[in-house]
Amino acid sequence: MSTAVNFQMIKEAQQNLAGIIKKTDLLFAESLSAKTGVELHLKLENLQKSGSFKIRGAYNKMLHLTEAEKRNGVVASSAGNHAQGVAISATHLGIKSTIVMPKNAPFAKISATRNNGAEVILAGNIYDEAYAQARKLKASTGATFVHPFNDPYVIAGQGTIGVEMLEAQPDLEVIFVPIGGGGIAAGVALAVKTINPAIKVIGVQAENAPSMYEAVQADKIETVAVKRTIADGIAVARPGDMTFPIIQKYVDEIVTVSETELSEAFLFLLENCNLVCEGAGAVSVAALLAYADRFKGQKVGAILSGGNIDINMIESIINHALVATGRRTQIKTAINHQPGELTRLLSCISDNGGNVLSTYQNRNRKGLSMYQMGVTVVLETIDAQHKAEILNELNAHGYEFYESSVGK
Amino acid sequence: MSTAVNFQMIKEAQQNLAGIIKKTDLLFAESLSAKTGVELHLKLENLQKSGSFKIRGAYNKMLHLTEAEKRNGVVASSAGNHAQGVAISATHLGIKSTIVMPKNAPFAKISATRNNGAEVILAGNIYDEAYAQARKLKASTGATFVHPFNDPYVIAGQGTIGVEMLEAQPDLEVIFVPIGGGGIAAGVALAVKTINPAIKVIGVQAENAPSMYEAVQADKIETVAVKRTIADGIAVARPGDMTFPIIQKYVDEIVTVSETELSEAFLFLLENCNLVCEGAGAVSVAALLAYADRFKGQKVGAILSGGNIDINMIESIINHALVATGRRTQIKTAINHQPGELTRLLSCISDNGGNVLSTYQNRNRKGLSMYQMGVTVVLETIDAQHKAEILNELNAHGYEFYESSVGK
Repeated sequence: MSTAVNFQMIKEAQQNLAGIIKKTDLLFAESLSAKTGVELHLKLENLQKSGSFKIRGAYNKMLHLTEAEKRNGVVASSAGNHAQGVAISATHLGIKSTIVMPKNAPFAKISATRNNGAEVILAGNIYDEAYAQARKLKASTGATFVHPFNDPYVIAGQGTIGVEMLEAQPDLEVIFVPIGGGGIAAGVALAVKTINPAIKVIGVQAENAPSMYEAVQADKIETVAVKRTIADGIAVARPGDMTFPIIQKYVDEIVTVSETELSEAFLFLLENCNLVCEGAGAVSVAALLAYADRFKGQKVGAILSGGNIDINMIESIINHALVATGRRTQIKTAINHQPGELTRLLSCISDNGGNVLSTYQNRNRKGLSMYQMGVTVVLETIDAQHKAEILNELNAHGYEFYESSVGK
Repeated sequence: MSTAVNFQMIKEAQQNLAGIIKKTDLLFAESLSAKTGVELHLKLENLQKSGSFKIRGAYNKMLHLTEAEKRNGVVASSAGNHAQGVAISATHLGIKSTIVMPKNAPFAKISATRNNGAEVILAGNIYDEAYAQARKLKASTGATFVHPFNDPYVIAGQGTIGVEMLEAQPDLEVIFVPIGGGGIAAGVALAVKTINPAIKVIGVQAENAPSMYEAVQADKIETVAVKRTIADGIAVARPGDMTFPIIQKYVDEIVTVSETELSEAFLFLLENCNLVCEGAGAVSVAALLAYADRFKGQKVGAILSGGNIDINMIESIINHALVATGRRTQIKTAINHQPGELTRLLSCISDNGGNVLSTYQNRNRKGLSMYQMGVTVVLETIDAQHKAEILNELNAHGYEFYESSVGK
């Protein structure tokens, strides 16, 4: 690789980015530390300018363009954080930027990208089509294509996160870092292993988009099928050929996390740490929660890579996590259809401290007698144990019921 | 006042608290700055140890107990942040702490207080009853009562927030600070006015609990009626006699914010700044949003005082704010009751980019003909303008409808 990244480039990037990006806090997380038994420090890139780390790499890349390249502008494709990073950096450097976004990109992201000074072109229904359009634009206009991860200056820019973490806490023993295309993971791993080869670096991917995990297993890059994931920011089907060897060399292990693990990590960060992360931003904490036993007593860093998430998605994730952790439950039961019977059912819940969120009655369920009414109740409990107590109470009162799940 | 607070006590508190509390970040808030036209810096006490600033005052107070007092332990009453602050500080200093909490205190708060090493006594149904019980305990056991705000060492501890803000950004011109009993406002105002008398300090209260606002207007302390507010952490019926004169002297102006303004500030912080605040923690941003025009171009600090908020309350506030800002709308209309008519109605919404969250049909509404079906639809739109476009489209398709509000 003639364009290999090295530690010196990361140190230079750090100087280049000073005063441009925020030097984000590395926050000791008491509640997560208490829960996991590690001493956890969170790198708050969700509070970075534009809400994600992406500006580090994008800005560092554009700084290295020649004057002629700057005059020809830059082009990029992204439905999310990379778009903001490129737009802000280009505007700051006086470079014209064109971002191709898929037509179904969230309105808020499109408008944020425009507000940051970029020209936005909507093309294609998926990222790949937007990417193809951006490559065409590069060819026809002479603009420089700013790759979201497969670029030495981009990787070096993201690597500055690792340097900052060790400046703040030099004796970190383990670092969890998200992996999508591999830019942040390659940069951070190279940086921290150069500073201290004894640090363990754990890369984290979504189970539904395990491209780098598979590549490392197979010892070669392949394209994987990507399923829908709330960690959409790291749903990359094919790792970069520049990031892959760096990750092979410097990342000790790659683990994957499920959608439910992700939603629980998101909820924990929201509820106990007062921080909003996007799905991709929460993967490192999801992995820590899953694998903490292996790191008990150690000093651990986890990167919250970004926080840009749709408000409706926040509601959906909260709901999913509350159901998954037994704090919100939907049950279906039947009552005798006469005055007072619904009250009796609901009292059995509220008298035991359960909070009823909704009730729905209907008589169309198969198997109900003429004198029965089907009732669906959504209730809230303190935790899974409190839920069990209330379900026992319903049993004791003679109600037949089941927890309804997908399809019933 | 023989126990007056002075700047020297605040500087000493800062030394006492070093290494005990987090020196929280003063974060430049791009999106809020762009929206308001001020240069806004947020003091992130929602990321403070235990999720609020209260530990500063509680710890500083306990440090000043005599050895005999320490042996007798401390007692406090609180349903919230002060409980955590006292429990953590006492445990750290090897002092026994007893916290009286009202019986209806959230389970999570009770268990957090116990986990932090305090003995928790549940007494009374409201804070005042818990307070009375705590005073009794003080009398019977000889324990020191740690007041949540009306204490010179508590005020001095909270004042360290102001010193830290000016260390990070010495040229702040305006500071917004929440006011409940007045501890944080008195401490911060005294601190920053001593350092720079030209700084403007704006105190903020919830419209539903305006005790300090009323006291300053009337030039004397009175007890006000407190209505329910999401800013429950600052819902104090009567200001402290120690905090009141300091606030009279050093706070330039007190403003109040409504529940809807609070919910919108909460949503903005959540959605655009990736930060979770409790209601009381968001008042300073709510006030900034309401009064920003007066401070255009100025360098402003706002204190996010805490972030401890129930997850169900988060959902409720999000919902309230989305409805208030025209992004979520419930309409009631009627359709002809025949196959395809519901689909036609919903298409009219979805074809124009509206997202349907729920539909509910019933025939029991007064005035419906035999051949009509009443339909209630909850829909989501990008913003108030998008909502208006969709409602116009429904009009153009001949639907009669109204936005349903409380009671209809």
